[in-house]
Amino acid sequence: MNFNLTQIPDRTKKPRNHGLTMVMDKGLSLEEAKNFLSVASPHVDILKLGFGTSFVTPNLRQKIELYQSADIPVYFGGTLFEAFLIRNQFDDFVNVIKDYGIKHIEVSDGSITIPHAEKCGYIEKLSKIATVLSEVGSKDAEHIIPPYKWIELMNAELSAGATYVIAEARESGNVGIYRGTGEVREGLVQEILTKIPSEKIIWEAPQKAQQLYFLELIGCNVNLGNLAPHEVISLEAMRIGLRGDTFHLFLDKA
Amino acid sequence: MNFNLTQIPDRTKKPRNHGLTMVMDKGLSLEEAKNFLSVASPHVDILKLGFGTSFVTPNLRQKIELYQSADIPVYFGGTLFEAFLIRNQFDDFVNVIKDYGIKHIEVSDGSITIPHAEKCGYIEKLSKIATVLSEVGSKDAEHIIPPYKWIELMNAELSAGATYVIAEARESGNVGIYRGTGEVREGLVQEILTKIPSEKIIWEAPQKAQQLYFLELIGCNVNLGNLAPHEVISLEAMRIGLRGDTFHLFLDKA
Amino acid sequence: MNFNLTQIPDRTKKPRNHGLTMVMDKGLSLEEAKNFLSVASPHVDILKLGFGTSFVTPNLRQKIELYQSADIPVYFGGTLFEAFLIRNQFDDFVNVIKDYGIKHIEVSDGSITIPHAEKCGYIEKLSKIATVLSEVGSKDAEHIIPPYKWIELMNAELSAGATYVIAEARESGNVGIYRGTGEVREGLVQEILTKIPSEKIIWEAPQKAQQLYFLELIGCNVNLGNLAPHEVISLEAMRIGLRGDTFHLFLDKA
Repeated sequence: MNFNLTQIPDRTKKPRNHGLTMVMDKGLSLEEAKNFLSVASPHVDILKLGFGTSFVTPNLRQKIELYQSADIPVYFGGTLFEAFLIRNQFDDFVNVIKDYGIKHIEVSDGSITIPHAEKCGYIEKLSKIATVLSEVGSKDAEHIIPPYKWIELMNAELSAGATYVIAEARESGNVGIYRGTGEVREGLVQEILTKIPSEKIIWEAPQKAQQLYFLELIGCNVNLGNLAPHEVISLEAMRIGLRGDTFHLFLDKA
Repeated sequence: MNFNLTQIPDRTKKPRNHGLTMVMDKGLSLEEAKNFLSVASPHVDILKLGFGTSFVTPNLRQKIELYQSADIPVYFGGTLFEAFLIRNQFDDFVNVIKDYGIKHIEVSDGSITIPHAEKCGYIEKLSKIATVLSEVGSKDAEHIIPPYKWIELMNAELSAGATYVIAEARESGNVGIYRGTGEVREGLVQEILTKIPSEKIIWEAPQKAQQLYFLELIGCNVNLGNLAPHEVISLEAMRIGLRGDTFHLFLDKA
Repeated sequence: MNFNLTQIPDRTKKPRNHGLTMVMDKGLSLEEAKNFLSVASPHVDILKLGFGTSFVTPNLRQKIELYQSADIPVYFGGTLFEAFLIRNQFDDFVNVIKDYGIKHIEVSDGSITIPHAEKCGYIEKLSKIATVLSEVGSKDAEHIIPPYKWIELMNAELSAGATYVIAEARESGNVGIYRGTGEVREGLVQEILTKIPSEKIIWEAPQKAQQLYFLELIGCNVNLGNLAPHEVISLEAMRIGLRGDTFHLFLDKA
């Protein structure tokens, strides 16, 4: 950090196993990705190539290598996994993963419906070749999952081999753990936390008010996801109490 | 495309005469424009220098050449045309067009009121020196044009020599074919489509929900405009069913 | 400017003492800052490193030098000043300012409560080593300051040595001189202007509708702040009537 300030909360350091910031790249050019890394690299733990953007992005191989050479693991958005699956191309998916030297995989069912045992089967199988992040929650705003079910799903997926479970929000932050307005389903989140360790959950939280909620609830080292690349420095300042919203959060109450 | 996936709808290829993506540059630097092209070039068909930004942007000549050398035609936002016109500087406008080697022109009346025959006169005259895109719809939210009138205006402008008609939305997507909330005036759009071929219309659709509406209504090769540069890759993924919103749109119904 | 257009209002030229555009950088990389300057430099008068982002941004020294070498003064967001102050590290703050060669300082009390005489004491002291911009208004939406009090505070701070007073809005534009919806508190603004010269006030106005309000009220050379870097060219076009919103604002009424 650039200056000496007292009462700055302890952030975990890379490689972190919690306190993660997961960023969504939805089509940066190579040069933009380099610029992004030059300023944000110490604060980015994992990078998602959002939904199916990796299918249409030129220079995909170079971009993956660029991130990996900065020690930032890359994975394809779960929508791509689902796109292969619904086309009966699971083996092709595995080959793509291997071909691109990808070491992290998201297993999700946000757009498709599969029996949960089958989803856990994919988690188990893929966890043998990569670190698996599994996502819980539907992209369909009409499809409400009750809290006890979120807990059951998360537990089963962690047992099946997922290293983290991701709580769904979409890029816009208006489904899954949020209402259509972006407001946090607080009861849901708090009930989940009675049963699942917060270190194992990555909360998709693209909006500032959502990030603030989790910083207040869990602390500066909460795992947050779906950050836009240009928001990473702002989030890092906010995590340690150097933004108006969190200014008093970590100060000694004297 | 980077992988083999079945059931990907057929996108038209450049140079496209429909399936267009029109992007609004409202002040990119040369370097940013290069970065943008390096990732989005295959997916950008035409580029608008938004409203009067070309008046204040440094390196304008180089930027126009940069886009043109990537085979992407450039035009000035209609507001600039109107700014010359209201100052009785139409001839100056033509000279600027020639001086900068511009081959595409937008003729609009979003901020000014001119008799429609006069507007069509400009379209006719300018279509002799360039490809004309004419824009229908007012930037004034209070000025509601009934559907039959949209159709009359569009037909007359195409007859006068416009290659495409653009349906107005502004950069923010809240006038013209949209309500103040950004919601599509669906009845209007559907009535227009009974009389004007969709291939001839570029729908300004800066918001994701607006893009989705047109993809569902018209298909993956709908002409869409006013895209922000960094949204082009996302849109392309969405066009072919690789984003949650359009995931099921192009899959075989078995 | 790139073309000849009549009836373009007279913008002040750099170095301006009013007509200022103040930009908030909340974590640009060096390369991004260079790109930004290459297009926006003539239109940027002062640059704020937003809230505590300067604490976590790598290459801070080089970035400050980069802006300063383009004759754009840099200052730390007031939240950083307050973060030092609440930790009883005022002297450390002064040393940081000197160490980084900073010549502009924001003195604010948006997140902390200090007696106003004490705030004015800091303004007086710091104005001996730098140009002081002092900010009036709380980041706390519940904390409403009545108009006469805004005027008292602004007058006292200008008398204490502030070169400009900044009217608080946060990055999001929803506190201070705005309602939670972003709507301008028009009565407040107009009452302030009966007593404080508009040349001495920088209005934080991150939203387009807010910029428009001040352009209509005060004219093209109003001081505006908290602009996002990529909005500077758009704002400049809007300032001189080359955007739909301001198209008629500066035209001769014949």
